[in-house]
Amino acid sequence: VNVAGVPHRTVRLDGDAVVMIDQKLLPWRFEHVVCRTAADTAEAIRDMTVRGAGAIGATGAFAAAQAVIEAARGDRFEAEVAETLAMIAATRPTAQNLFAGIDAVRAVIDADPRASVQRAIRAANAFADADADACRRIGEHGRSLFRDGMRISTHCNAGWLAFVDWGSALSPIYALHRAGARVFVWVDETRPRGQGARLTAWELAQEGVPHAVLTDGVVGGKMRAGEVDAVIVGADRIAANGDVANKVGTYALAVLAKHHGVPFYVAAPTTTIDGHCPTGAEIPIEHRSEDEVWRVTGPTDSGELRTVRVVSAGSPAMNPAFDVTPAELVTAILTETGVHAPSQLRG
Amino acid sequence: VNVAGVPHRTVRLDGDAVVMIDQKLLPWRFEHVVCRTAADTAEAIRDMTVRGAGAIGATGAFAAAQAVIEAARGDRFEAEVAETLAMIAATRPTAQNLFAGIDAVRAVIDADPRASVQRAIRAANAFADADADACRRIGEHGRSLFRDGMRISTHCNAGWLAFVDWGSALSPIYALHRAGARVFVWVDETRPRGQGARLTAWELAQEGVPHAVLTDGVVGGKMRAGEVDAVIVGADRIAANGDVANKVGTYALAVLAKHHGVPFYVAAPTTTIDGHCPTGAEIPIEHRSEDEVWRVTGPTDSGELRTVRVVSAGSPAMNPAFDVTPAELVTAILTETGVHAPSQLRG
Repeated sequence: VNVAGVPHRTVRLDGDAVVMIDQKLLPWRFEHVVCRTAADTAEAIRDMTVRGAGAIGATGAFAAAQAVIEAARGDRFEAEVAETLAMIAATRPTAQNLFAGIDAVRAVIDADPRASVQRAIRAANAFADADADACRRIGEHGRSLFRDGMRISTHCNAGWLAFVDWGSALSPIYALHRAGARVFVWVDETRPRGQGARLTAWELAQEGVPHAVLTDGVVGGKMRAGEVDAVIVGADRIAANGDVANKVGTYALAVLAKHHGVPFYVAAPTTTIDGHCPTGAEIPIEHRSEDEVWRVTGPTDSGELRTVRVVSAGSPAMNPAFDVTPAELVTAILTETGVHAPSQLRG
Repeated sequence: VNVAGVPHRTVRLDGDAVVMIDQKLLPWRFEHVVCRTAADTAEAIRDMTVRGAGAIGATGAFAAAQAVIEAARGDRFEAEVAETLAMIAATRPTAQNLFAGIDAVRAVIDADPRASVQRAIRAANAFADADADACRRIGEHGRSLFRDGMRISTHCNAGWLAFVDWGSALSPIYALHRAGARVFVWVDETRPRGQGARLTAWELAQEGVPHAVLTDGVVGGKMRAGEVDAVIVGADRIAANGDVANKVGTYALAVLAKHHGVPFYVAAPTTTIDGHCPTGAEIPIEHRSEDEVWRVTGPTDSGELRTVRVVSAGSPAMNPAFDVTPAELVTAILTETGVHAPSQLRG
């Protein structure tokens, strides 16, 4: 999609470097980070310079291609590739796409370093292109779920910044908006990292989609007042039974939607589905630092980025990054192949 | 209760000045504000230097006493009192206690300025003492609701800072803790103003009650994991049918508690009950500035208070300060007279 009229992708491979939008600085600054080594790219995944299921999937694939390029320069090719891929896979535990991206590159490696490098680069680019294409198709399929004038709630950021392009949950909204339909989006702030307030709000403003930011406790009252017609969120991993791991707070939104008879949709490319996870109980949930709860960073009125404390010093915090929404609370799962009942995922 | 070993009340009348803890600076700084006129005291209610249902009730009573003192110096006694009381009542619309506090003073005024001043001061002090006493009794009655080892969720701040002393929702927790029972409190951060993260966390730490701060989207997952045994919150106004207005986000917590079969308690002195409001639909909900959502203030690591932006510039926000939880989601209402079913409030 466009930023100030110029087409951008969230992450891409440029020679042997990975170039990504710095999502820690957005929306205060729009800058790119260049990661010249697989280790640098892995660190960018870990510290959430790049985040979002599809974006870290593609970044994982690009990091894996870098691993192959780097190993081809040494004399322990296969062993070094294996070590570096394991290091990349250890950056974040929950999003299935990361492992799918790494596996897409792993599958084309053999003992021949030179040929493996060419195949790894092609495979990583193909994985990223497939993510963008899947998201575009999610948008097309998803248009059928919404009617003109709907007020749609979303949580966290499952827009184009969370993928290579277009996004998952926001893709149908962009498709509707570009087709001239009226849509309005309630954007959950999404503490602690504020991906809704910072990234989804910024994306929607770039596309001109009407929206308002709500702190995370507000949307329940909006549902009770009849001001929410549907909920759509992304997913970091979907178990074989249709249970969905997504940003913490998604589960509460699903319970509220059920209580009010509001449809609750999950949008994700099929790379997010983990057939090896029978239920949500087996999805590992990342626990991140207390410091993300304790402190927030943003610009002062003079534009200087500062970090301030927002929790009483000496009080512990808990910071699970994700929660699991059971399949019975999910109205439908939207993928690049169409709209599915959660129970039909295997089919 | 004690702060660093010294007994404090949230707000008190000292001569013709109202002295209050500055809750905008807590927990970063513990300072008092002295309001020398009724207009200053009203502004402190409006800008939330003092907040919390009981605390603004007592502050409203003290401001009303100041109004009587000031009017007694002029020659339009009764007209001036009436004007100033209307100005005080217009500061914040939702908390019933504010109007109860003002009315307690209004009831003792007659055409005699000098006698009215003495009665107004006595009435305001009696109102504040009654609030502290009601909260203490709420704590005693509330002990029966909880068992040793319980993990209790709360939202916003309904502790002693929200009242003259002891608090409502936290009063039973303090009573249990002082009696040697083990209690653990999940503290909702409570965006946008962070009263949970700033005030409840600070109060609990002062009393040595074990707790952890959660961003507002987390507690649903904690309930699903079976890690929440009860919820207790305060109230800003309770309608005659038992519907409860409280800090925004309370409603979502009540829906989640219902979904998980977790008891949901509301604690409030009877001054919070508005017999003239038949249901929650008639409770006016305050909408505060977008700026409270857009920006947060806190200390940097060097201790300097700074305000930083946390929402993408150009995105609107909505900031209702309260929501309404219908009586059918409330397990029991705890007042100074005991534990009541919401439907039995009138009795």
